[in-house]
Amino acid sequence: MAPQPKYLSGDQSAIDEFINKFDVSIYSLALLKPKTLLTFSSGKKIVFVTNNSTKSRADYQKKLSSMGIPSEIDEIFASAYSSAIYISRIMKLPAPKNKVYVIGEAGIETELRSEGVEFVGGTDPAFRRDMTPEDYTKIADGSMLDENVGIVLAGLDFHINYLKLSIGYQYLARGAKFLATNTDSTLPSNHTFFPGAGSISIPLINMTGERPIALGKPSQAMMDSIEGKFQFDRKTACMIGDRLDTDIRFGLEGKLGGTLAVLTGVSKKEEWEVEGANVVPAYYVDKLSDLKG
Amino acid sequence: MAPQPKYLSGDQSAIDEFINKFDVSIYSLALLKPKTLLTFSSGKKIVFVTNNSTKSRADYQKKLSSMGIPSEIDEIFASAYSSAIYISRIMKLPAPKNKVYVIGEAGIETELRSEGVEFVGGTDPAFRRDMTPEDYTKIADGSMLDENVGIVLAGLDFHINYLKLSIGYQYLARGAKFLATNTDSTLPSNHTFFPGAGSISIPLINMTGERPIALGKPSQAMMDSIEGKFQFDRKTACMIGDRLDTDIRFGLEGKLGGTLAVLTGVSKKEEWEVEGANVVPAYYVDKLSDLKG
Repeated sequence: MAPQPKYLSGDQSAIDEFINKFDVSIYSLALLKPKTLLTFSSGKKIVFVTNNSTKSRADYQKKLSSMGIPSEIDEIFASAYSSAIYISRIMKLPAPKNKVYVIGEAGIETELRSEGVEFVGGTDPAFRRDMTPEDYTKIADGSMLDENVGIVLAGLDFHINYLKLSIGYQYLARGAKFLATNTDSTLPSNHTFFPGAGSISIPLINMTGERPIALGKPSQAMMDSIEGKFQFDRKTACMIGDRLDTDIRFGLEGKLGGTLAVLTGVSKKEEWEVEGANVVPAYYVDKLSDLKG
Repeated sequence: MAPQPKYLSGDQSAIDEFINKFDVSIYSLALLKPKTLLTFSSGKKIVFVTNNSTKSRADYQKKLSSMGIPSEIDEIFASAYSSAIYISRIMKLPAPKNKVYVIGEAGIETELRSEGVEFVGGTDPAFRRDMTPEDYTKIADGSMLDENVGIVLAGLDFHINYLKLSIGYQYLARGAKFLATNTDSTLPSNHTFFPGAGSISIPLINMTGERPIALGKPSQAMMDSIEGKFQFDRKTACMIGDRLDTDIRFGLEGKLGGTLAVLTGVSKKEEWEVEGANVVPAYYVDKLSDLKG
């Protein structure tokens, strides 16, 4: 069995040692509730990360603020932002064939706009409707498409429909690059699950046989953008989250100094207590408030 | 390399031999165009099969009739019909927990009704709308669900949306059985592709990790229902179609006497001319009209 994580809840000397070890705390936003006290990180650098692409960083800052958690917009890394950065600063497709066809909500649009990236689709009401018989013809012959689209970016879209998928497929079939804000299969909400961004893009994967480049956790594109902003020593940073396959994997693949799993979310300790488990955190606690410095 | 198929186009003695060998012709409906002459099958038993679940058998009979191809409703096997038969005669879930939640179009509803199967969802306008904030609560706590749903049946749905997927997931998470009319990833139309039934159900597969029982080609549930109706000797039957992964596989797995690939559709002969090809027809022609008896 893989080396098992250290359990911190109730072990004050282990908690103190843990706190002294790290200067940078990268929190999964989903962990945070109103009045969560980030005592472990008091006086240290804090970064917030989320794979939810439906909101912009400004929206998240407001949300954190309403929960009584102070933050700067630069400290927030959301998958919509990572995607915009990746498109504008890494891919840098030559104009004019560098427009983005967006399957997703307003958060993506805000971040693309702030990076000066042109896009179509997204929340445009023209795409929120049923297919008509003429649509089949116009999608097939290209007359309904924007010839300058070079990228399809799929995120969580609460208004997904047959028209958007048909157009997305058509762009991909004509050679557009395929990106996804993230590939989480589910969106946890109300103590159950709803379709996540990964379940919005998967029809296109199924149709094309092609997998998108994903820009959210655990993609290192997001880690690179955090490091690009703050120039920190990865060995002094700890990733804190509740999902093994995104949060903890993100920290492990980013070779951070530590990873801390908090058992108030989707993942359970049984997942790393099995033979062959390949995503094992360095530490775990039952709940975030167990970490009192 | 696997034994290669016999090429019939232009080889009249091979065509005659082929014609004499089979008494039952099972045609993929997608092959047929207006005024297609089924000369090869003249005087023999003909069966029509299709994975498209959006129409009922009665709809297909009308369509064949409008193309000048005579047929009986009993000779038409569509995946909506196979699904209804499978639910009513094979699964036979005990009442009252035997309702079906339908993701799909009217064809499925017609066939379920004709088998006396109760259902919710489908074309009901109540499911063709955006999510509201209350929907998340009501789906999660079950108050929006029908407690008697025991089956989720997903087919091609031109009105797929986030609400339908969220409800479908919730039924599956609560133990409903998972069926699909078929799992074709694409729907060929206008010389390109649109999302097929398999790209409608795949978000639910992605969320649950569970694969549905598929009732269309190449599922042998459909072959069993054909045999159940006509009691024929499989060795005397030939499957004729243009898709290797559905049509030809259907005939091979059904151990029919023959399979004939027609190269006017999606599949190309290069697909069986490679090392390791595992779906190889017994015969092929360039086009159906090459088969003049």
